[in-house]
Amino acid sequence: MHISAASKKGYFITFEGGEGSGKSTQLKLLSTYFEKSGLPFIATREPGGSENAEKIRSLLVSGAVDSWDPVTETLLFTAARSDHLNRIVKPAITEGKIVICDRFFDSTLVYQGIGKGIGEVYIKSLHNMVFGNFMPDLTVILDIAPEIGLKRADARRGNENRFEQLDIKFHQNIREGFLQIAQNEMERCVVLDATKDTETLHKQIVGIIKEKCGVFL
Amino acid sequence: MHISAASKKGYFITFEGGEGSGKSTQLKLLSTYFEKSGLPFIATREPGGSENAEKIRSLLVSGAVDSWDPVTETLLFTAARSDHLNRIVKPAITEGKIVICDRFFDSTLVYQGIGKGIGEVYIKSLHNMVFGNFMPDLTVILDIAPEIGLKRADARRGNENRFEQLDIKFHQNIREGFLQIAQNEMERCVVLDATKDTETLHKQIVGIIKEKCGVFL
Repeated sequence: MHISAASKKGYFITFEGGEGSGKSTQLKLLSTYFEKSGLPFIATREPGGSENAEKIRSLLVSGAVDSWDPVTETLLFTAARSDHLNRIVKPAITEGKIVICDRFFDSTLVYQGIGKGIGEVYIKSLHNMVFGNFMPDLTVILDIAPEIGLKRADARRGNENRFEQLDIKFHQNIREGFLQIAQNEMERCVVLDATKDTETLHKQIVGIIKEKCGVFL
Repeated sequence: MHISAASKKGYFITFEGGEGSGKSTQLKLLSTYFEKSGLPFIATREPGGSENAEKIRSLLVSGAVDSWDPVTETLLFTAARSDHLNRIVKPAITEGKIVICDRFFDSTLVYQGIGKGIGEVYIKSLHNMVFGNFMPDLTVILDIAPEIGLKRADARRGNENRFEQLDIKFHQNIREGFLQIAQNEMERCVVLDATKDTETLHKQIVGIIKEKCGVFL
């Protein structure tokens, strides 16, 4: 396996899904896989992923469920994304690395745009204004019923639970939102059944990446 | 002096100007004047002014001069403004209070839009998207040559000096930017010579507020 010498551009792969869908677990397995394969990559996350964006994350993910109104929250996510893209993601892609990222724009679209009712047009307009048409090359959506996902998330509960506290209807809307995105953007998105066992899912993900980002096979 | 019973709406008065232009001093004097007059008012500031927005302020105003890129910085100022407007400024105006505020949109327009080169159109579009046409009823611009203002600011220097560190050309552009706004929006803006003595300036400001916001005289 190698990055083609002709290819100057890396790949930007995002992982999306509701609470407890197993994104972090799959990102860890994929990181180990890339390490063993000797592929140039970075694993990162949103909100956060850069020193500054992590400071913004700490404002966003803990505290009372209503500590930020939806518009302010969206602006903070976008500010964190701006720093993260400029300082971490875009430079890595330019260097030809694979960037794997836990959550990105689709999360803003479904959590704030749909779940909190700001509207998809608003979220998309803000994204376009700030980031132009910058989007992931591939998005893996880990789909799970929120009843199951929230139980899983509960088991690992820390203080980063501001969004988990929202009611079941909210999380159902989130799930529907992700599935809708996948339907609208079939070229970019793949939906996987997150109730499958960890190892099976990992193999599926590796297979998809090999297929979609074939240049580094 | 009284707020007219017919008036349900307060007034939103902002103070703008470069570093060391004396905004804080004048806001203190004006607060004392309103207190003595028994007028319902609040004095606030940006970035900050609400519990959440002050958390964002602490990220913005200290640290290295390049610790935030201009776009991320603009988004953080806007996020802080969103919280501040929703939780402090708009409720106070609805209650019929006078709101006096140290810096607002015009500072974003000149510091980020002009000084840091993001462009006025970008800043105005973002403002319109997030806040519609919400603008101050009156803006008092305290004008001072940056050579003098920065010396004054230097004398009171704390750790909130991230913007003061920028070079003299930057601060000259800021001054020109404020004067241009005043020229474009003569109905809303008043420019005062900030080298005048504190008490003379205070009297001028009270006179202007009496004239412009006559309903509570």
